[in-house]
Amino acid sequence: MSSTSKTAGIVIIGNEVLSGKTQDTNSHFLCQELRALGVEVRRIIVIPDEIEMIGQEVAAFSRAFDFVFTTGGVGPTHDDVTMSGIARGFRVSVVRHPELERRLRERLGANLNAARLRMAEVPEGAELLGEGSLYSPVVRMHNVYIFPGIPKILYERFEAIKEGFRGSPFHLKVIYVREGEGVIASILNNLLASYPKLLLGSYPVIDNPEYRVKVTLESKDQDYLNQAFQTLLGAIPKGSIHRIEGS
Amino acid sequence: MSSTSKTAGIVIIGNEVLSGKTQDTNSHFLCQELRALGVEVRRIIVIPDEIEMIGQEVAAFSRAFDFVFTTGGVGPTHDDVTMSGIARGFRVSVVRHPELERRLRERLGANLNAARLRMAEVPEGAELLGEGSLYSPVVRMHNVYIFPGIPKILYERFEAIKEGFRGSPFHLKVIYVREGEGVIASILNNLLASYPKLLLGSYPVIDNPEYRVKVTLESKDQDYLNQAFQTLLGAIPKGSIHRIEGS
Repeated sequence: MSSTSKTAGIVIIGNEVLSGKTQDTNSHFLCQELRALGVEVRRIIVIPDEIEMIGQEVAAFSRAFDFVFTTGGVGPTHDDVTMSGIARGFRVSVVRHPELERRLRERLGANLNAARLRMAEVPEGAELLGEGSLYSPVVRMHNVYIFPGIPKILYERFEAIKEGFRGSPFHLKVIYVREGEGVIASILNNLLASYPKLLLGSYPVIDNPEYRVKVTLESKDQDYLNQAFQTLLGAIPKGSIHRIEGS
Repeated sequence: MSSTSKTAGIVIIGNEVLSGKTQDTNSHFLCQELRALGVEVRRIIVIPDEIEMIGQEVAAFSRAFDFVFTTGGVGPTHDDVTMSGIARGFRVSVVRHPELERRLRERLGANLNAARLRMAEVPEGAELLGEGSLYSPVVRMHNVYIFPGIPKILYERFEAIKEGFRGSPFHLKVIYVREGEGVIASILNNLLASYPKLLLGSYPVIDNPEYRVKVTLESKDQDYLNQAFQTLLGAIPKGSIHRIEGS
């Protein structure tokens, strides 16, 4: 059925996020991109650079979702343990990938030391994606796509492989309402009773003089969305609508 | 022992984050604040507005960590199910809190409808914090502190109660290094071998002409940190250090 979604989970690996030194923006990037591709992100988790925990969480996400995306913890230093963690989670060894090693040798020559060779290590059985177009390819282990934490590099690598995730799109309509949530709550409840499959969101806004609630309606079924949207428009007093957006 | 940390977990509740409509900034705020208070955040999770899942995750976090902070899903509309979810997780009912109801009646008078009365609902047994200073108090259920998703309101409420979480501080030193991670990795490994309790981070930076890696050293033990820091300074070639920060 074209209206069902593939699901995804995102695993952010990094002590620097948990200790407040860095704000993670990678999960928001991935959520936006995946939504536009029609993929439903069901869960994000942020965990420390710890092998055992990475293994447990990635394995659980791999079972629960169609696609898993990890960011962070790939590199040459002591705190880069994502590959080891994922290998642990899938009960395989960490091995040196011949193609990654070949690229490193070509690029670094005599400067290739033991630390940098760690960049060629992957869980046994992992495959490479985007080899043709990327400076460094994406490593995939089963349904787990392993990305670095540096946003610019993540964006470039995701861009190279994203068409592989495309499914049927979500359609979205947004109504900005001048009344508060307390006034429109019963209208929204009635709407959901009539359209139980509608994805309906209600988000209060403070400090904006023009509207007080942003209401979002979504569905993969354009007709269903249009009908729900018309029903809602008929139920909200006309003077209360500040603005409408959507497809 | 003063050098041990209390732990925390953060549960972000909101379809709007998972669908990419909103970037969560609340978790970063809480991570920064809690770090400054000496609390170790061990895990962040972002989950949908679903009662059963909220219950399971909050109950698991409550068992795993000293403090749990939730944001989002408190309000008068259909998608505000955090209170129901947490009640489910602790196997209690949702009840109307008399003090919250009193405040709503005082504030809204005749405009208090059924939807708005939902704002007085809490898991049975929940307590209020910051009643004296806050427009709306923080709701606490066991070790779970329940916050709204609107950042400005979250900040104000957290500020009112934060001293209750204060423990011994983390001390931090930062070294910005001109060499890449591939060069300093073995130095960092040696440092950790000598100071296994050191919290040591290594973060590559791209597109900055002045340095290539930010190295962070942390400990709750100032002497231990100072010794590790001096050891590292002695091991990194002097010309490679761009800048030093820290206490």
